[in-house]
Amino acid sequence: MKATNKNIDLKSFKVNDGFFSPIRKLVKDVVLPYQHDILEDNVEGAAKSHAIENFRIAAGDENGTFYGMVFQDSDVAKWIEACAYSLALYPDAKLEKTVDDIIDIIGRAQLDDGYLNTYFTVKEPEHKWQNLHECHELYCAGHMIEAAVAYYEATGKDKLLNIMIRMSDLMYKVFITDKNPELAGAIPGHPEIELALMRLYHLTGNDKYLELTKLFIDNRGNEPNFFETETKRRGWEHFHMNYNDKEYAQNHLPVRKQTKAAGHAVRAVYLYTGMADLAGATDEKELFDACETLFDNIAEKQSYITGAIGSTHHGEAFTTDYDLPNDTIYAETCAAIGLIFFADKMLTLKPSGKYADLMERALYNGVLSGMQLDGSRFFYVNPLEVNPGISGVYGNYRHVLPERPKWFGCACCPPNVSRLLTSLGKYVIHHNDDTIYSNLFVGGKADIPLASGNVTLTVTTDYPTGGVVKYTFDEVSDSEITLAIRIPWFTYDEDGKTSCVLTHNGKTLDVNNITNDGYAYISDIFKSGDEIILSMELTPVKMYANTSVRYDVNNVAIMRGPIVYCFEGADNTDGALQEYGITADAKIKEGAPMDIIPGTTVIPLIIDGYTKKLSGKLYSTVAPVTTPATLTAIPYYTWGNRGLNQMRVWMHLF
Amino acid sequence: MKATNKNIDLKSFKVNDGFFSPIRKLVKDVVLPYQHDILEDNVEGAAKSHAIENFRIAAGDENGTFYGMVFQDSDVAKWIEACAYSLALYPDAKLEKTVDDIIDIIGRAQLDDGYLNTYFTVKEPEHKWQNLHECHELYCAGHMIEAAVAYYEATGKDKLLNIMIRMSDLMYKVFITDKNPELAGAIPGHPEIELALMRLYHLTGNDKYLELTKLFIDNRGNEPNFFETETKRRGWEHFHMNYNDKEYAQNHLPVRKQTKAAGHAVRAVYLYTGMADLAGATDEKELFDACETLFDNIAEKQSYITGAIGSTHHGEAFTTDYDLPNDTIYAETCAAIGLIFFADKMLTLKPSGKYADLMERALYNGVLSGMQLDGSRFFYVNPLEVNPGISGVYGNYRHVLPERPKWFGCACCPPNVSRLLTSLGKYVIHHNDDTIYSNLFVGGKADIPLASGNVTLTVTTDYPTGGVVKYTFDEVSDSEITLAIRIPWFTYDEDGKTSCVLTHNGKTLDVNNITNDGYAYISDIFKSGDEIILSMELTPVKMYANTSVRYDVNNVAIMRGPIVYCFEGADNTDGALQEYGITADAKIKEGAPMDIIPGTTVIPLIIDGYTKKLSGKLYSTVAPVTTPATLTAIPYYTWGNRGLNQMRVWMHLF
Repeated sequence: MKATNKNIDLKSFKVNDGFFSPIRKLVKDVVLPYQHDILEDNVEGAAKSHAIENFRIAAGDENGTFYGMVFQDSDVAKWIEACAYSLALYPDAKLEKTVDDIIDIIGRAQLDDGYLNTYFTVKEPEHKWQNLHECHELYCAGHMIEAAVAYYEATGKDKLLNIMIRMSDLMYKVFITDKNPELAGAIPGHPEIELALMRLYHLTGNDKYLELTKLFIDNRGNEPNFFETETKRRGWEHFHMNYNDKEYAQNHLPVRKQTKAAGHAVRAVYLYTGMADLAGATDEKELFDACETLFDNIAEKQSYITGAIGSTHHGEAFTTDYDLPNDTIYAETCAAIGLIFFADKMLTLKPSGKYADLMERALYNGVLSGMQLDGSRFFYVNPLEVNPGISGVYGNYRHVLPERPKWFGCACCPPNVSRLLTSLGKYVIHHNDDTIYSNLFVGGKADIPLASGNVTLTVTTDYPTGGVVKYTFDEVSDSEITLAIRIPWFTYDEDGKTSCVLTHNGKTLDVNNITNDGYAYISDIFKSGDEIILSMELTPVKMYANTSVRYDVNNVAIMRGPIVYCFEGADNTDGALQEYGITADAKIKEGAPMDIIPGTTVIPLIIDGYTKKLSGKLYSTVAPVTTPATLTAIPYYTWGNRGLNQMRVWMHLF
Repeated sequence: MKATNKNIDLKSFKVNDGFFSPIRKLVKDVVLPYQHDILEDNVEGAAKSHAIENFRIAAGDENGTFYGMVFQDSDVAKWIEACAYSLALYPDAKLEKTVDDIIDIIGRAQLDDGYLNTYFTVKEPEHKWQNLHECHELYCAGHMIEAAVAYYEATGKDKLLNIMIRMSDLMYKVFITDKNPELAGAIPGHPEIELALMRLYHLTGNDKYLELTKLFIDNRGNEPNFFETETKRRGWEHFHMNYNDKEYAQNHLPVRKQTKAAGHAVRAVYLYTGMADLAGATDEKELFDACETLFDNIAEKQSYITGAIGSTHHGEAFTTDYDLPNDTIYAETCAAIGLIFFADKMLTLKPSGKYADLMERALYNGVLSGMQLDGSRFFYVNPLEVNPGISGVYGNYRHVLPERPKWFGCACCPPNVSRLLTSLGKYVIHHNDDTIYSNLFVGGKADIPLASGNVTLTVTTDYPTGGVVKYTFDEVSDSEITLAIRIPWFTYDEDGKTSCVLTHNGKTLDVNNITNDGYAYISDIFKSGDEIILSMELTPVKMYANTSVRYDVNNVAIMRGPIVYCFEGADNTDGALQEYGITADAKIKEGAPMDIIPGTTVIPLIIDGYTKKLSGKLYSTVAPVTTPATLTAIPYYTWGNRGLNQMRVWMHLF
């Protein structure tokens, strides 16, 4: 299963999109500077970060001690990575200077042998490589490798890259060359190094990084349990993690035998991403098949309608098939982002609509909801139901905050959102020798190096507001090439026929005939000026969950195209949200445009429904009183922007 | 608010009831011997108890060390109390000898100054009275006082009573006479001593015990926080409890200011029981009003339809009004039992139907469900929904076991069920100078000492199978007396008119005219042979929850009389239970009698309904397929007796 498809180079797709460009601008102008202030502890009222200061202390620039989580370094790494993606398209000398200065500090924080990790350098220098289970050494290295690769690709500057090559070479020595028996069977507690080393391998072509990735992936799930051996030898603990909880770190079975997404959701999808990348690089069908099985399990049994994953805060984890509670959910922003990484990697191996469909679902819903519309606050947990006074307060709901906080002590999610949004372009278009894949409908101009020559393609669309996507060829190849356009899941009828219309220079194509596995393939010797237009009807629809999902039975959700809608108390004031319901035949209309916050206007959906109310007694033989009521829905990603109020995605079916 | 009504003396009401007599016989013949075996560690596969052995070690009869929870002694106490109630009506020389022998051990385990607690005597003798917050010293004393009072009342033997009088006198010295500044403001972490000292006060008339009760009740919720002072002074911890979590132990406000049931549910209702008893003894309206407010809050905002309480396993606690999840519920058996104690005590102060209605609801549902029908296994948690493969397995559901285990390491519930069921008679009838209150419809023969003379009354009923209760006077008084019969909640229409029929020697009474606050008052100079007959129609009804209970909206439960029904997978095999639904107008029929286990026959309820199924995709625009289906419901208290299967009380309303 050789990976034949590649992401478009970030610099080669200039996003110009009504929906995403303002968000990217927000990230560039507001979020990245804000996050820098956070990392430097300049934001009052936000949880302390100390992340850059840790590097300064490790570098000897400042006195002091390490503060924060054992993986605090990764916050800096993800922020640098996000800056790199932003700089790739939007040069910004001031930002670049800030990053360069931080890279200088990082360089000084690196030890002579290449070792880089401020927690161990400053706090426990005698404990290096002794607690892979709990201490995120390889995880932090992975994130810094990603940052290094991204910064090199964006700016051509190789200082951070060389730092991380030295660190990677040290890891190769420690885990392979040294043949240290104590590290036989070693695996990281939190996968990330695997996908990162693969990026370094793709950039450098150095087989050592592929070999090290394969070692970590092949070791996972083997007996004896490395975490147990390591814990017993070492005699000290950091988080008091239970090495017998093997599922938590996907260590319960060899990865090729795993069939159900399990354990900590972020760890899982980061691991699967690395596995998919490795399968593509080594042309290994067994590993690819395992990845596809795991992806299908997530897509069809363990993901929320928003593309979120992780059903429980106990271990921030998957639980089991169809167990998808809405109000005690975990649904970490990072997990939805990791799912996009995984789906993207699968698309490079096999262009199937299912991967792009779920990638899109996660992007427009479970990821975007992680950030306040003004870029200043972030969710870690992205619930499908919140109830003020309970969510964020009591027992099982304590982690489900009803409003986004400014920052988190464990701040993995905010910089992850930044790097995903700034690198969005690379997910939009894939290509191989002679085919261009349009995975996501995001406007912009792409320069694509096909085997027969460069092709320039402009994508124009008002998606997801509208359903028309126009592809205009500018520079073209002399040979026949193929434009493969994803035909999204919501355009198919029950018989699998799409209602999309595709035209080529005004001539309608037989879209169902040219569509295979979710992509319509249009092959031609295109001429400059050729126009392909995809037209989709973005009709609001009622969505039903598989009735094995017991939380959603007798409920209905609303979607329009890729956008999941939700209901907030702010718009629905005739009762508590759970008192509202919709009938199966209710019409869904578009309402007048409304501002969620100044500058963010949405078209709400209006549905005639009912409230059912029973008050007074706690239990009664008297049925609730049914009253006609109008329901107003807004896009899920815009929820929680208007102060504390109730929110639901799934509404009762009356 | 003087308590004018009294429980009937246990020996004066000989239960002879089609429903309860077999259960009481089971407790006598199976459960009490089984629990004795457990306490002596003679049951293979059950969690280790060591509870009697702890007393032997404390007595110096055996060598060894204390094993178990810090409150392990209370298991022995509750078992002795249950034996006492059983012996009160069913003399059993062998059982009495067993108890006497254990009491001898307990006597030898008591220290010279009266102190009795095996944990502290054996394990931490230097730590007595230093950790009232965590260490259950007063709790264990309370349970042993209850056992002592019960055993004296049942057998006339005063050995255990004198042991506990010495212990109580020691407590009076420690907490009052000594004026120890370190114990100023002292309160127990787990209320129980209050209600127990009140029992000792009622038996002995010794004001010291009333004074000590009042001290503990008045101290609660005051500043400074006693638990904080105590913890900081002592410098050691047992359970690492957080003294700032004041609600957990009802220590957040002075008790007279508390308006919402809060914190650990068992602690709460034990405390409220003591408060109500004290209010009645001291004729204090403010304290009574607080009790009534708290009771109303439970009854109308914080209890399950089964009479269970405790919405979350986090702190085994109440959460907030209307937060009543069915599948992550706590609903500890002990809490439902404690609610019966509280309701009973309120009835002695104010005979209002609301107290007896909730007492009955808890008894027939949330308490009885705690015990396997064969008496061999017990639930701690009594859920309203279980899903095999999830309940008892994952995160928020881990504590919700889908089948009863044999015993628990923390075994408060099983002996609590025993003592409640063996003492059932005393809740059935209350009386004051000239009125007999019939609170629960349990058959038997009552000898009641009214002011004008003894009255003998025989109650004959097939309740809750049938709805006819016959009261026959035998020995009568010469004066006018009153028989007050509870008119249950389920007989009233929306206008508050009851459909009950009451006859006096065949003559129909104007029941609505003589009913006040849930009791019908029939006053007469009764003659021997006089018959009062109460006839209730026990029609199965659909129950709806207040729509503030978001878990139950658009759902329906089934009750018949006091019995809540549930649906088990064993009887409903056309799909998963959540796929079933009932329409608002569905007829409910009685099915053919069926054996749940040999010897326990129930009349199932049969309802024509539907299944709605959607399989394949996880989310779809296609609505689930509706198919007619027949639903079978069985009494909730019989659930979980036929192996592992799904169970729900609330079913979808289609």
